[in-house]
Amino acid sequence: MEYKFSDNINKIESSVGEILKYASMPGYITLSAGNPSAEVFPIAEIAEISDRILHEDPISVLQYNIPEGHPKLRSSLKSFLRRKYSIGSPNDDVVVLSGAQQGMDLLTKALCNRGDTIITESPSFVGALNCFKTYGVNLVGMPMQHDGPDLSALESAIQNNSNIKLIYTIPNFQNPTGITMSLKKRKNLYSIAKKHNIIILEDNPYGDLRYIGEDIPHIKTLDDAGIVVYVSSFSKVISPGIRTAYCLAPKQICDKLTVCKQCNDVHSTVWSQLVANEFLTKYDFDNHLLKLRKFYSEKYLFTKNLLKQYFDEKISYTDIKGGFFIWCTLPDNIDMPSFCNELVKRKVCVVPGTAFMIDSTSPCNSFRINFSTPSNQALEDGIKTISEVYSYFLKQ
Amino acid sequence: MEYKFSDNINKIESSVGEILKYASMPGYITLSAGNPSAEVFPIAEIAEISDRILHEDPISVLQYNIPEGHPKLRSSLKSFLRRKYSIGSPNDDVVVLSGAQQGMDLLTKALCNRGDTIITESPSFVGALNCFKTYGVNLVGMPMQHDGPDLSALESAIQNNSNIKLIYTIPNFQNPTGITMSLKKRKNLYSIAKKHNIIILEDNPYGDLRYIGEDIPHIKTLDDAGIVVYVSSFSKVISPGIRTAYCLAPKQICDKLTVCKQCNDVHSTVWSQLVANEFLTKYDFDNHLLKLRKFYSEKYLFTKNLLKQYFDEKISYTDIKGGFFIWCTLPDNIDMPSFCNELVKRKVCVVPGTAFMIDSTSPCNSFRINFSTPSNQALEDGIKTISEVYSYFLKQ
Repeated sequence: MEYKFSDNINKIESSVGEILKYASMPGYITLSAGNPSAEVFPIAEIAEISDRILHEDPISVLQYNIPEGHPKLRSSLKSFLRRKYSIGSPNDDVVVLSGAQQGMDLLTKALCNRGDTIITESPSFVGALNCFKTYGVNLVGMPMQHDGPDLSALESAIQNNSNIKLIYTIPNFQNPTGITMSLKKRKNLYSIAKKHNIIILEDNPYGDLRYIGEDIPHIKTLDDAGIVVYVSSFSKVISPGIRTAYCLAPKQICDKLTVCKQCNDVHSTVWSQLVANEFLTKYDFDNHLLKLRKFYSEKYLFTKNLLKQYFDEKISYTDIKGGFFIWCTLPDNIDMPSFCNELVKRKVCVVPGTAFMIDSTSPCNSFRINFSTPSNQALEDGIKTISEVYSYFLKQ
Repeated sequence: MEYKFSDNINKIESSVGEILKYASMPGYITLSAGNPSAEVFPIAEIAEISDRILHEDPISVLQYNIPEGHPKLRSSLKSFLRRKYSIGSPNDDVVVLSGAQQGMDLLTKALCNRGDTIITESPSFVGALNCFKTYGVNLVGMPMQHDGPDLSALESAIQNNSNIKLIYTIPNFQNPTGITMSLKKRKNLYSIAKKHNIIILEDNPYGDLRYIGEDIPHIKTLDDAGIVVYVSSFSKVISPGIRTAYCLAPKQICDKLTVCKQCNDVHSTVWSQLVANEFLTKYDFDNHLLKLRKFYSEKYLFTKNLLKQYFDEKISYTDIKGGFFIWCTLPDNIDMPSFCNELVKRKVCVVPGTAFMIDSTSPCNSFRINFSTPSNQALEDGIKTISEVYSYFLKQ
């Protein structure tokens, strides 16, 4: 039979899955992944929690639960978000998600008709862009600057498009550029969105992993108008395999997200929710975050030294303050796709910058490298190979 | 702010969550749920498996995995489905789902544009109907008969609608009617779908829970044209809290479902997938199913006797062969919504039949009772109350 798929799905050019496939090829150095390091998974604690919940109250773990999330975890998250980031008003509520990706999916479903517009940073997280595309929305990009997205591009996007439903941003250590939005820009972005009644999806998967400088308040702290949906995840700070994330959003929006979640997957795995809840409440989560920051900070400094040592000054790269990614840009006379292909031939994988563009055919001379997943040896070998390929291209 | 939600989501009248809320009210007898009985959860086995996988290979449990599902589980499922039901051709593949509900969501996303038509049994599973509605599709019903859906209604639905993308059916112990489709009807339904190139979503959550008679081959066994997407779940036979289900479908469809899954939730919880895999492969799963059948069969016979004892012959009910539900129909002179409201006043919850109709304003004089969740005492008290309310209405 010749299958006829939906117009939206036919337009998805390639899934992130394709990119991740490289990461699992034997013998390859993968600077292309975005995985947290298994070295800092709280394995003993999770095994201990799992054993306890399965013995003390197995039926709660194994029976159906409610779509918005386990009441214990929702309650702990509200306290945690208030204590740690001063976010969450009486008008807000929490919905537990099967990973932050689901937040993008449910929010798009709740807000967008086909043809509506979502404004995103450009480049941005490919998983979010593809998710938005599955709803047939019109994506408009704000080019990234050193202090966050170009807000003049936001203003002109608002002028030139109708039915703008959402602004999608990753303010901290953005994926893929690693850039952090300044407080001034957060305030300006918020006030523009508020003026035009546009909801902001503030995606913060890496916010707890700052290595340099002071935390900048979340956009959600400014939210007196109830327009910010804050999404974060335990994927980078506990474990991605448990697929547990959450959003803090105005109650009316949470109600619709709950309807959508009921229709999508009924509810998230209860075991995962209880593991996250116990780890958040009965262990020293703040100290765990300190340990993670120390671990990744060392990895980052190691990587930064390699970049200094091996990169010609003509390959520029972002000076990041946290997160997992560094965005490297080649000089104009080197073709990025050919460069990345040559790297693959030499068994080093990075992600070509075009993967993160709204329109993957638009020009981009950058690629993303990740330092959280590879071993230090792999980082050194990989970055050395990048510099060799660069020299090879110079001689062409 | 006045929020503006999508047209599709605005049209969802009520979520199943609303119905399930009754089920958790203290002091209520809930014949309205659809939960498997916690008495037959394989608690010891799951605790044992969980302990083992978290000690033997914790990183696999906690790290990211691939969207289509853990390779071990996908491989075991293929063997299981072939051995047990003789389904799965070289052209088929398996995708692991976060519950069967996700299969409906991903397949609708992959196949349907807004305005396309899905043909379903009527009444049908409210979770499926609501899921389809979130994509703005046109739903057309096939009224249920004693041996399955009315296929003349299918033929006329095909004649009167364009862009029919899917026929949704629950052939075994249908939710909510409990009806099982005859082999003859399965063959006829398949040949009509094949003739018109329409994909069949064969949803089989209860198929392993037959109490009377012989299993009837799945529609998927007939699938020489690659038009059947078979979906089943571990929710009713291991645990719903683990949110693990699967589909067996033509590879081209699985590829698109994988793209959709990547965009929806990246992948399902790995712990759940490995728990299901270990239970399926290292324990006597067939014997576990026998135990479940015996347990629920006794519960069903107990319920059937209560219905004989307490129900006036004018309340008719389906003579089911398996599953969790019995569909009761009141005589025309009694108003079903008033009847169900009176039951709630007396702290007995059933689900009004209208909840399962495509158009909840269409006439329906039936309600659904569930016998898998309540204790025997609750079943007796609940059914007795139903008979008292019936007498009360006769006297009105």
